[in-house]
Amino acid sequence: MPLSAKDYKLMDHLGEYITEHRKQLIDQVLNLRTRHLTVVLENIYQSHNASAVVRSCECMGLQDIHIIEGETPYQVNKKVLKGSYKWVNVIRYKSKNVEAVKSCFDLLKAKGYSIVITDPAGKVPVHELDPTRTKTALVFGNEDVGVSDYARNHADDSVRIPMYGFTESMNISVSVAICLNVLMAKLRAIDWKYGLTPDERDELKLAWYRKIVKRSDLIEKRFLLSIA
Amino acid sequence: MPLSAKDYKLMDHLGEYITEHRKQLIDQVLNLRTRHLTVVLENIYQSHNASAVVRSCECMGLQDIHIIEGETPYQVNKKVLKGSYKWVNVIRYKSKNVEAVKSCFDLLKAKGYSIVITDPAGKVPVHELDPTRTKTALVFGNEDVGVSDYARNHADDSVRIPMYGFTESMNISVSVAICLNVLMAKLRAIDWKYGLTPDERDELKLAWYRKIVKRSDLIEKRFLLSIA
Repeated sequence: MPLSAKDYKLMDHLGEYITEHRKQLIDQVLNLRTRHLTVVLENIYQSHNASAVVRSCECMGLQDIHIIEGETPYQVNKKVLKGSYKWVNVIRYKSKNVEAVKSCFDLLKAKGYSIVITDPAGKVPVHELDPTRTKTALVFGNEDVGVSDYARNHADDSVRIPMYGFTESMNISVSVAICLNVLMAKLRAIDWKYGLTPDERDELKLAWYRKIVKRSDLIEKRFLLSIA
Repeated sequence: MPLSAKDYKLMDHLGEYITEHRKQLIDQVLNLRTRHLTVVLENIYQSHNASAVVRSCECMGLQDIHIIEGETPYQVNKKVLKGSYKWVNVIRYKSKNVEAVKSCFDLLKAKGYSIVITDPAGKVPVHELDPTRTKTALVFGNEDVGVSDYARNHADDSVRIPMYGFTESMNISVSVAICLNVLMAKLRAIDWKYGLTPDERDELKLAWYRKIVKRSDLIEKRFLLSIA
């Protein structure tokens, strides 16, 4: 949603509490952010794995991560996250049955995402997927059984990570990192056109300013009263 | 070391206890194995991280992993390893002072490896490193402080992983996976000429046959008596 005139005024005001250097870093990160590619984690057992994924996504410039929580709720693991949680949108879907996956997929499809599951038996190696064609949501299943039947039956495509040894799978956070590294390299290869819209950038910027400025809630209250 | 005539006879004999399908898989994995690229882990605190690295290396076709153990010994984490430990050579260096790193680097240099540290301030992005020029040992430091001063001062080169967000580093196993994915793709890009020597392949094959065949020690003893 576009910011209002008041929001822009507030952003300028909060900006006075942030160093120029920091503001430049924020603008730089915002320019490199994307929603063109997103990650969906389905029923990950171990929260340190999910947390490592959130951290990798933040480092690589993804803004959204979708976490489907089935039997095991996702516990934030602060030690693994290293603060990355603050800068990304983690969208959580909770339900013990198939409803959670369905809500997630429906939402993504409505937003124009092509849903691609990762699977040892995936149709093509991830290197052959072309993420420039359409917005892509990459789905990773749990540590033992992989993605659910629902995900398998409702995905648009499937990819595999090429394996060269005896071990049949890699750690989940490792798998995510490899796929993102391959696909983000393709998105960043030529001129960067997969970034956020100006409205999305501004909205995030205000949200981040609020997080960075100490006691921004109080400052905001006072400022809004002063311009009322 | 080349196998003796007796070793080859033993290998053939043990081969009788292994299915054709399995033998083909072994040959395939052997052909894709490399020592051209290797990984050095320096003083990793958390054994699940080191274990995830061993697993990734096996999946990607690396045969050797060097683990420098300083304050914290490396504990094998079987749940994370998923059996990968059996198929790779983990070379461990133990010492609470700089001796362990020195031994490791001296050994690698004597074998013709170029030593490349990974560091947030590394000279070039890992994508710009050309691993085809020379055998390369990639060094990863510990979770908090990175590589040691000794490693920094005795390396031939340094690389960094490009980062696009606020979080300053990725999980160690994620970092290793990204670097290996980038560099192994370069080695596998054209015709594969970074594999093991025929002698190395045969030596490993015998070692793997011994691991695969149940009670191979007894079978071996009986066989050697029979041909004595």
